[in-house]
Amino acid sequence: MAATNLSLDADRLWADVVALAEITDPAHPYTRRSFSPLFLKGRDFLAKRFAEAGLTVRIDTAGNLIGRLDGANPTFGIIAVGSHSDTVPSGGRFDGIAGVATALEVVRALRDKGERLDHTVEVIDFLAEEPSEYGLSCVGSRGMAGALEPAMLDLTEPGGEKLRDALRRVGGDPERLAEARRLDIKAFLELHIEQGIVLESQSLDVGIVSSIVGIRRIEIVFEGAADHAGTTPMHLRQDALVAAANTVTSVRRIAEQLAGEGKGYFVATVGILTVEPGAPNVVPGRCRLVIDARTTDIALTTRFVEAIEQESTAHAATARVKRRPLVTLSEGKPVACDATVRAAMSQAARDLGLRQTDLASGAGHDAAFMSRICKSGMVFVPCKGGKSHAPEEWSDREQIAAGAAVILQAVKALDRSLQKGKE
Amino acid sequence: MAATNLSLDADRLWADVVALAEITDPAHPYTRRSFSPLFLKGRDFLAKRFAEAGLTVRIDTAGNLIGRLDGANPTFGIIAVGSHSDTVPSGGRFDGIAGVATALEVVRALRDKGERLDHTVEVIDFLAEEPSEYGLSCVGSRGMAGALEPAMLDLTEPGGEKLRDALRRVGGDPERLAEARRLDIKAFLELHIEQGIVLESQSLDVGIVSSIVGIRRIEIVFEGAADHAGTTPMHLRQDALVAAANTVTSVRRIAEQLAGEGKGYFVATVGILTVEPGAPNVVPGRCRLVIDARTTDIALTTRFVEAIEQESTAHAATARVKRRPLVTLSEGKPVACDATVRAAMSQAARDLGLRQTDLASGAGHDAAFMSRICKSGMVFVPCKGGKSHAPEEWSDREQIAAGAAVILQAVKALDRSLQKGKE
Repeated sequence: MAATNLSLDADRLWADVVALAEITDPAHPYTRRSFSPLFLKGRDFLAKRFAEAGLTVRIDTAGNLIGRLDGANPTFGIIAVGSHSDTVPSGGRFDGIAGVATALEVVRALRDKGERLDHTVEVIDFLAEEPSEYGLSCVGSRGMAGALEPAMLDLTEPGGEKLRDALRRVGGDPERLAEARRLDIKAFLELHIEQGIVLESQSLDVGIVSSIVGIRRIEIVFEGAADHAGTTPMHLRQDALVAAANTVTSVRRIAEQLAGEGKGYFVATVGILTVEPGAPNVVPGRCRLVIDARTTDIALTTRFVEAIEQESTAHAATARVKRRPLVTLSEGKPVACDATVRAAMSQAARDLGLRQTDLASGAGHDAAFMSRICKSGMVFVPCKGGKSHAPEEWSDREQIAAGAAVILQAVKALDRSLQKGKE
Repeated sequence: MAATNLSLDADRLWADVVALAEITDPAHPYTRRSFSPLFLKGRDFLAKRFAEAGLTVRIDTAGNLIGRLDGANPTFGIIAVGSHSDTVPSGGRFDGIAGVATALEVVRALRDKGERLDHTVEVIDFLAEEPSEYGLSCVGSRGMAGALEPAMLDLTEPGGEKLRDALRRVGGDPERLAEARRLDIKAFLELHIEQGIVLESQSLDVGIVSSIVGIRRIEIVFEGAADHAGTTPMHLRQDALVAAANTVTSVRRIAEQLAGEGKGYFVATVGILTVEPGAPNVVPGRCRLVIDARTTDIALTTRFVEAIEQESTAHAATARVKRRPLVTLSEGKPVACDATVRAAMSQAARDLGLRQTDLASGAGHDAAFMSRICKSGMVFVPCKGGKSHAPEEWSDREQIAAGAAVILQAVKALDRSLQKGKE
């Protein structure tokens, strides 16, 4: 990274990342699942830091934690910066966290320099960006974009709690969700670790995100017969796991084919497979798979789902089990980032002397939902070996600070340009 | 079933089966896992019933609940009758339970008629016959046979508790395990539901078990990389679930081949498959399978394990993951039942006018371990559709009573014959 005057406090920013990351399940670092007691502990920490930075703190009805720094001209609307503080199980210290800490540092840096913007700036910690036990991701940003459908509130985690009740537990209000929908936000900026190896392999400082993949999540359930594993001859079995295992193999083969065509980015994963009753001496009677398919070209996902529909039906027949109809748990279209915000970010990187590139995001982000209601863009910073969603996830203090400086400069530039119609 | 004078109270026996079965996790009938609070509640019920029947009640150092009815001639030793009261998750109302209730009814019937045997009779509820969260089955009967190895006591359930501590919790004493080993038991008889469809399909009343399969349990762990499911291209993945799924397919195919050769009974099952971290947007980094292989011909299991060793290694290489060395969790040889006990059971069935057959047991039983220290035999009673280890498991009141009458008459016959060397 080139030497730059970042206009912000890299150490203070780093200290927040570390402090938030340390709020983890000690048995499974780094875990701070949305809706959990640890998540609420993390939010207490954030709310305290927001207040110390002079922000007005509230939780909206969609469960987002928001800190507000009033601008000089209330009619200009809001520039929002943020990300999320929840993690996957045994995830990392930077995914989401770096973006929330950056948003906080942006407003602190503005206040330190006495720079009052015309726009009000909001720092947002979105609720439940990672898929939670309720089977949905980006709960908070969906709510802010008016895309949290009533039916989604009835999603239920394995313990029996509905999402609407979980939302209430973290300070949201499922009955007044409409109030979370925002029309006053003019632009949204998010810093995030790349979670891939493009930046590192090309020795770049920042990536300006061009588009975000569309993610489709599908559930498949196979139902067989939970017979005795000792007394049921092989040819009389209705083994749900045999059908599920063959479906995992199909997902892998079909995804490799589609990715290899070169028509667009495509990946598919079976990340959840549960076996019931789950005893060594019982033939599996029920298996549930969750498939995650991502693409920049929606036609690829359509073909993927058609092929899986066909092959999983065949696998069920061979194993003499029943396959329930495929359930679409969630579906998001690919999203192009806003040209004005991208240009401001790119100019900021140039001004700061940073090495940059445009790149697509293989991961979904809150920015994808925010783009439905305002001009949105993202800055990626490198992470070591491309590792993410794992304890070894890592970005250097200087890498995060450089990305945060791009966000800060872009916010200031947008504050000037948006109000003047210089889009 | 032919009309018979069973010399026991079929309603009283049935009432005990029902009462014990009802002690279940209400959310997952019928579940009473060994070492759980519900299991201890079931044991309280049994201990009370044992005492009401005039038995002296104790728990041995291997955690077995034992009720004792002293015989007229203490030097003759002990005839034991029993089974187990624990269940698999979402299991049935009869597996194990019918055998424990039968043992209790046998001593009540003897007392009702004022028939004092020369041999002392013991009613045994063996600890943890079903595989528990510690990865071991037949804990109590292993202990009684001197086959509960010190290393097994260090087996640990997912929550971190060692088997030795669990054993202590249920009244056993891991430091004094040697005291559980019995040399004074002369014969052991066990009633059990068949858990198969031979008796029902041939309209038979009882099966006299000729041999019990040897069971081998193997653990395979695949370790890949828990990368981000969105940003890791298909060709760079190290997906542990892909290797595990292909191994499930191998287990099925190889087991079908071996069973089809007709050289002996053979079945193999993957009943446990866990995926870590288990989130839809994370490539599975670790998978654990438990394979259960059963046979009456040990050579088949040897060939099975060799083939799985080879194929799972190949699957790991293809998926670019690491396969840990196969771990044998437990291994039991096929066991032939004792000729004297079988003859007494068969004669009793004839005397009672019951339709009988000899048959092999595809399930493991406590009797397999008891056969190491005394003459052992089993009576099977029919169960509807062969279903077991499932909530729909069912045997009729009369079917259980008929099997219990065979046990009762065989105990009386053995009491006469064993002491006279009429073996």
